Amino acid sequence: MKYRNIPNETIRRLPIYMRALLFSKEQGRQSISSQDLSRFIGTNSAQIRKDFSYFGDFGTKGVGYNIDNLVKEIKKILKLDIDKRVALVGVGNLGSAVIAYPGFKMFGFDITAAFDIDPKKISRKIKNIVIENISKIPSLRDKEINLAIIAVPRQAAQEMTDALVKAGVTGILNFSPCYITVPKKVKVITIDIAMDLARLPYYVPAS
Amino acid sequence: MKYRNIPNETIRRLPIYMRALLFSKEQGRQSISSQDLSRFIGTNSAQIRKDFSYFGDFGTKGVGYNIDNLVKEIKKILKLDIDKRVALVGVGNLGSAVIAYPGFKMFGFDITAAFDIDPKKISRKIKNIVIENISKIPSLRDKEINLAIIAVPRQAAQEMTDALVKAGVTGILNFSPCYITVPKKVKVITIDIAMDLARLPYYVPAS
Repeated sequence: MKYRNIPNETIRRLPIYMRALLFSKEQGRQSISSQDLSRFIGTNSAQIRKDFSYFGDFGTKGVGYNIDNLVKEIKKILKLDIDKRVALVGVGNLGSAVIAYPGFKMFGFDITAAFDIDPKKISRKIKNIVIENISKIPSLRDKEINLAIIAVPRQAAQEMTDALVKAGVTGILNFSPCYITVPKKVKVITIDIAMDLARLPYYVPAS
Repeated sequence: MKYRNIPNETIRRLPIYMRALLFSKEQGRQSISSQDLSRFIGTNSAQIRKDFSYFGDFGTKGVGYNIDNLVKEIKKILKLDIDKRVALVGVGNLGSAVIAYPGFKMFGFDITAAFDIDPKKISRKIKNIVIENISKIPSLRDKEINLAIIAVPRQAAQEMTDALVKAGVTGILNFSPCYITVPKKVKVITIDIAMDLARLPYYVPAS
C-alpha cells in the first residue's frame, strides 16, 4: 500500500498520536476513541479522525481505534518500523539531555555515536556511548548511519552540518539556535526548545 | 485591535516565524519576502502569506514584509510584548539545558525560579538562579509567576503539576515524558524532544 498525498501537517502530528497511543497502551488500553485521544494531546477529535482517514483507518463505532494496529500503521508510514541508528554532535547540556532522554527509544531510535570538540569529553562514556572527536565524523559513512542530531553552539553548527553531509547523513535534527544550509537531498528539521513556550501566554489569562 | 479567529495551527507557527525573522534581522535585513522566509523554516510561502493575512499584514510587493513591524505584531498577538517570568521544576539534564538555552530570552522569557527534590542540588546556583526545594513551589503565588516548565521524571510529573496549579500557575510547558492532568483554566503544552526526529525518516531516502 502506498500512502500518497498525506499532508506535511498530518505527518507532523503522527508522532504526537503515536506517543499518546503508546502511553495509553501502557495504561492497559487496547483501543481508544478519537475523543479520548484528543484529551491526551489537546487537539480536536475531528482533526484526529481526518488525519487517520488518510491511511484508511476509520476506527470502529463505539469501540474506537485499535491501538496496536494504529501504531503499526503510523510506524510504517513514518518508516519507523526498522530501528534507526542516530549520531549526536555536541555533548553539552542539551546533547547530554538528548542522550539521557527515554523518548528516542520509543520511536525506535538508538543513539549509537556521539561527537564533541572538547578534549575533556572525548573518550568519556555517556550511557554506554564513547564520545569521539569530531574529526571522526566521516566514520559515519562506514557505519551506514544517515540520521544525526546537532546540539552545538551556533557558530559551529554549519561546519558540523557540512561534515555530516559529507559523511552521507541525509536527515538532521537541528537543536542549535540557528539555521543551517544543506543540499536539496538532505532534510533538516530545526527545533527550538523555547518555541513552544512562546505560544503558551496566548492561552493563559494575563497575570 | 482584536485578533479573533486565528487558527491554533497559525498560532503554533507564529513563534517559528518570529524566530526566523529575528535571525534574519541579525544578518542585517530589514525586510524579507515570504519566499526567503519559507527557505529559512522549510514551509511553503503560500502558508506564510495566509498566516500573516490573519492579522492584516500583506507585505509590500517587491519588498516583502517589514521585519520590525512583523515581530512587533507577532509579539502582541502571542502576548509576548511584556517580559514573562518563568519557573522551572526539575534541574536534571534537560532542566539544566533549559536554563542554559539562549532561546528563551529571545521570546522575552526569563527563568527566575528553579526547584528540585535532590538535596545535593538545593541551594546550588545555576545561571544566577538559586535552586530551591520543591516545598517552596507555593512561593510562586507571591512572586506572581504564572508560567512554569516541568522537566522531572514521569512518576513525579503529576504531583509537581498539582503543586504548581495550587500556587496559581496557569500555563505549563511539560517536558516530562508523560501526560499530565490539569483543571480547565490551566493550559498545558506537552513536548517530546524525540518527537521531531520521528518524522525525519519519512523524508529521508532509505539507507
